[in-house]
Order: sequence, then structure tokens, then C-alpha cells
Amino acid sequence: MGRRKIISIIGGSAQTALDEDRAIALTIGKLLIDNGYRILCGGYGGVMEAVCKGARSSNKYKEGDTIGVIASLESNDANEFCDIVIATGIHYARNQIITASGDAIAAIGGGSGTLSEIAFAWQLGKPLFSYKKTGWSGKLSEMQLDNKRSDTIIGYDTAQQLIEKLNTLF
Amino acid sequence: MGRRKIISIIGGSAQTALDEDRAIALTIGKLLIDNGYRILCGGYGGVMEAVCKGARSSNKYKEGDTIGVIASLESNDANEFCDIVIATGIHYARNQIITASGDAIAAIGGGSGTLSEIAFAWQLGKPLFSYKKTGWSGKLSEMQLDNKRSDTIIGYDTAQQLIEKLNTLF
Amino acid sequence: MGRRKIISIIGGSAQTALDEDRAIALTIGKLLIDNGYRILCGGYGGVMEAVCKGARSSNKYKEGDTIGVIASLESNDANEFCDIVIATGIHYARNQIITASGDAIAAIGGGSGTLSEIAFAWQLGKPLFSYKKTGWSGKLSEMQLDNKRSDTIIGYDTAQQLIEKLNTLF
Amino acid sequence: MGRRKIISIIGGSAQTALDEDRAIALTIGKLLIDNGYRILCGGYGGVMEAVCKGARSSNKYKEGDTIGVIASLESNDANEFCDIVIATGIHYARNQIITASGDAIAAIGGGSGTLSEIAFAWQLGKPLFSYKKTGWSGKLSEMQLDNKRSDTIIGYDTAQQLIEKLNTLF
Repeated sequence: MGRRKIISIIGGSAQTALDEDRAIALTIGKLLIDNGYRILCGGYGGVMEAVCKGARSSNKYKEGDTIGVIASLESNDANEFCDIVIATGIHYARNQIITASGDAIAAIGGGSGTLSEIAFAWQLGKPLFSYKKTGWSGKLSEMQLDNKRSDTIIGYDTAQQLIEKLNTLF
Repeated sequence: MGRRKIISIIGGSAQTALDEDRAIALTIGKLLIDNGYRILCGGYGGVMEAVCKGARSSNKYKEGDTIGVIASLESNDANEFCDIVIATGIHYARNQIITASGDAIAAIGGGSGTLSEIAFAWQLGKPLFSYKKTGWSGKLSEMQLDNKRSDTIIGYDTAQQLIEKLNTLF
Repeated sequence: MGRRKIISIIGGSAQTALDEDRAIALTIGKLLIDNGYRILCGGYGGVMEAVCKGARSSNKYKEGDTIGVIASLESNDANEFCDIVIATGIHYARNQIITASGDAIAAIGGGSGTLSEIAFAWQLGKPLFSYKKTGWSGKLSEMQLDNKRSDTIIGYDTAQQLIEKLNTLF
Repeated sequence: MGRRKIISIIGGSAQTALDEDRAIALTIGKLLIDNGYRILCGGYGGVMEAVCKGARSSNKYKEGDTIGVIASLESNDANEFCDIVIATGIHYARNQIITASGDAIAAIGGGSGTLSEIAFAWQLGKPLFSYKKTGWSGKLSEMQLDNKRSDTIIGYDTAQQLIEKLNTLF
């Protein structure tokens, strides 16, 4: 089927994201759109906002390329760079939807919210990439979370490296 | 905010949709895109498939204009005319997400699934339109479901009439 | 398996329940416990509170006989007569859980929230009983909601009649 | 309010639990009931089954003391030692409900599912205890998952130690 691939980006919120996380998220956002992917995230601040903002700096960006799947029932809670807002009203449980809807998942730093998303992505059998240098994505890089899978979370050091790894999959 | 408006279309599934429901859904799909709206639905067959298919017959259609919010965890379960699939894994509870994510909701016929969506749309305070002639959208047309709202569900007879009513809102 | 049967009671909230709804809910609560059932409800006011309160007036009542499955993440939001609070944090989507967890469902009056629960109970194939005299339970009594099932919602006029009907099932 | 406290036990499933995990879960189940707590878990095998089975070995056990909040819509999927089954139909997202419904959470070993529950419990601000010796409960023992909280996950070495720590809270 020719549906465009969705990459779900998970990572630190406004409260937990580092400057370094925001910076790489901006670049990843641009490169994902350059390479024809659609971006899905949790729709709030920090890494989620940066990746959506980065998307708009791509020459190939078109309205509709960024999706925010938010915890609340109120679309206006999303960051301004989400083109499409999915208002779930199911709080943290929406992390299941973020991970299930991605053809692959890439983590950038992050706290306990990102940790739950990494765990869900693993359970759902998704290709799972993690930024090696910060937060929970760094701590779990190259790890096998449990014996349900025989592979590991795949670490990446740069935005370009993530894109190269994704491009081998799709 | 300049985000494009999303119209959530709810209605009969492959099992419950009438030919008449599919026919008007095709036209509604086209007209919604003609008028600049994005379409969100439950992502499966019947009315959901017809409205997404109709969208593609609009000259203004662009990839990304149709969203399917499905019950399962598996994006491939969606109909082929959904550009974007949100895989929730929460079964019928995803009806909350379909209604919460729409700026307005329009019902076309439908059985018990559509009935639950009409009820959710009402509870969420959404502008709510219903096709007067078939299924639960017909039975509840012009009704006030309870005293939480003072308005009624707004009936429509034709696709063109629905669009005119929507265009007065946005 | 010998697990005690759970009857899910759905009906008007603090805002929509009639005095008549509360009165019959009190009696139903008592009789359900008299007859060995466990009670599950949405955990808030109106019919939900009345049925839990009624349970405590049974000589056979034991702590643990009433369960409230609430919309929020905060157990303290439940009415004081719920022995066990399941805090879902998924808003109206918790109506799926209320209906899926019951071995049978009985509706008492109700507005749009109850309407969504009746629809879910139907979709889930649950034995479904409705009080004939008030609200949505009255309007849908004896109806077949769609062609997914060949039976109808079973109306009842009194608490005693509901219990007799339930006792033929289990 | 005098509602009985619920302790949510999270840990390895049939697939990931170690013999050591099952053994301590059996003892914890018994001791929790001895000390007046109600037990809630994910309702399936491994640690979930063991803690419910252990509950029944307490002299103070009464029917209704064990709750399983399961992923599917079908109550019969639960283990036989759950007195009450909450059938959510929301897959892994039910991990939010397991953690939100507990007055405190105790982890025993576990794989990626338990990891997501530990993350949720942290986000929800719940008192959170982890068995020091196995699985993810061991790896995260004494850790502060992110800066949203200033405390740490509290490690325990034995069932008795967990109970003593819980008894200081309630």
C-alpha cells in the first residue's frame, strides 16, 4: 500500500526537554519531511513542538505533514506547529496511540512520559530508535528491554544518522 | 488560529450502511474537500470508506486530507482511502476521539456505533448535524438529547445543505 | 467459573437523573445485593450514587460489593458509596469499560451519557435491560438498535421485575 | 473517607516472570490481605496470577479482595484468582488505569509492560515501590525517573519489608 510512512517522535516535554533535545528535534523534523515522511507526536511542548516546527523549515513541507495526538479533549491545547490535532481525552494512555500509529518510533531524550512510550513501542514490536546522548533515550540505547523481542533499541548520534537508518527500512 | 477545520463523519459501517448512505457520503466527501475542510472518520468500511473515497474526487484534494481513527492497533486495518491512520487499540472507546477531534460532526445513517458517537458528540458540546432520512442520524434529527444543551441536533436533507450549514460556522 | 456476576447499572447523572430514577435505583441496588450480584457503575452522582447507596441497605451487603469506574484519574471524585473505585482517566471512553465489565447491563432513565452506554452494551452483545418509564432507557425499551443483533433491549417496569429477568440468565 | 486502600501490583507476565518473582508475589499477596489492603493487578498470568493466588492463602481473605484490570473486552481472559474483572478493551493503555487506581504501586521484576506501568505510576505521583532483585523493578530501584518528582522509587528486598513501608503510609 502506498500510504506515506509516519514516524512518531517521542521525547521531553516543555518541562523535561534539554536545549540539546530541542535542537536535534528541529533538525530531525526538517529531515523527516525532506525525506517524505509524515511526523506524529504528542502535540505539546519541548521536543514535540520542536519537531513540528522543524518540519516547516523543509522545502518539501506541506500543510498536513505534522500530527499531534494530545492527552486532552481540547484541540487548542496542542502546539501551534501541529497541522492536525487528534484530541484523545485519555491522558497518558494516549501514548499507546502515538506508538501504535507510527511505522517507526524515534526517541529524543525524555523523562517518565517518554519512558512509557519507549516501553509501549517495544511491546508493539515497532522499529525503535533512540538518541544516544540524553535522557531515557540515551539510557536505553542499544538495550533489549525484555525477552519478547530479540533485537535492541537502535541508538543514533545525529539527525542524519537517524534518517539513514529509517531509509533502510522503508 | 489558522488550523484547517476538521469535520468528523460518522455513520454506518460495512455491515449497517445503506446504499443511500454510501451515495451521500461520497458527495459529502467531495464537497468537504472542495470547501477546504479536512475529513476524519472511523477508518473502516461503509460510510467511512465512501466519505474518504469521495474526498479524492475533489479537484482540491491533496494527500493528507483524510484521517481514519481506527479501533485496532494495526494501521493496515483501515480502508485504502484514508491518507492518515491513527491506530488507537481502544476498540469502541475510539469513538470519543473521533468526536473530540472534529470541529463539527456530521452523521449519516448508522447503527449502534453511530448512536454512541452521536451521544459523545452531544456530550462534548460539538456542533452536530444529522442526515434526516436514514438510520440513527434520521431518528435523532432535530432532537435535544438531554438538558445539558439547549440546542438540537441539526438535520440536513442533502450534501449541499450540510456544507452550507457548516460554512456558516467556520 | 464461579466468579460472582456483575450487573452494570447505567443511568442519569446528578444533572439528569429524575427523583423517580433515584428511587428505583435505590431499590435495584438493594435487590441486586439480596440476590448475590455485584454492582458496577460510573461512580458519580444521580442513579450511580443511588444504586450504590441502595446496595448498603441489603442485609447481604459486604464491603466490596459496589464498584465505580470513573472518568477521571482521581479516586476521590467517586461517590462515597462506591467501595472500589477504578480511576480510568479516559473520560467518556470509560463507558466502554462499564459495559464490557458487566455480565448484564441495566439502564435507568438517563441522558446522552446513558445513551452512549446503551449503544456500547448493544455493540458488545451484552444482555441489556431498560427501565421503561424515563429518559433514554424508556425511549429505547423493546427496541432493536441495529441489525447486528436479532434480539431487543428488554424493558422492565419495576425493580423486582428486573431481578426476575436477571435471575433467569444466571 | 474510610475506603479500603488498594495496592496495585505490577510485574512480569506469564512470559517474563521469574520463579523468584512468582514466589515473592505469592507472599506479598498473602501479606497485603493480612494487613487489610485490597489488591489490584493486570489480571493475567505470572506475577499477576501469583499475587491473586497468594491473597487467598490469607486467613483474612474475603471474596472481592482481588481485582484484575485486563487489556481485553472479555472477562474470561483473566486468571482464575481475580475475584473482580474489569474488562477495559484498551490494550496496553489499561496500564494507566492499573496505576491510577492504586493508592500505592509495588513492582515485582517485569519486562517492558511493567516498565510502562512504573513510568505511569511515576507520572501520576503515586507512592512507588520496587523489588530490588529482578527485572525492571530491580533496575529502577532507588531511581528518580525525572525531575517531575523529587523523591525516588523505593526499593524493597522482602515481602515483609514492602508491607512495613506501606503501613507507614496508610
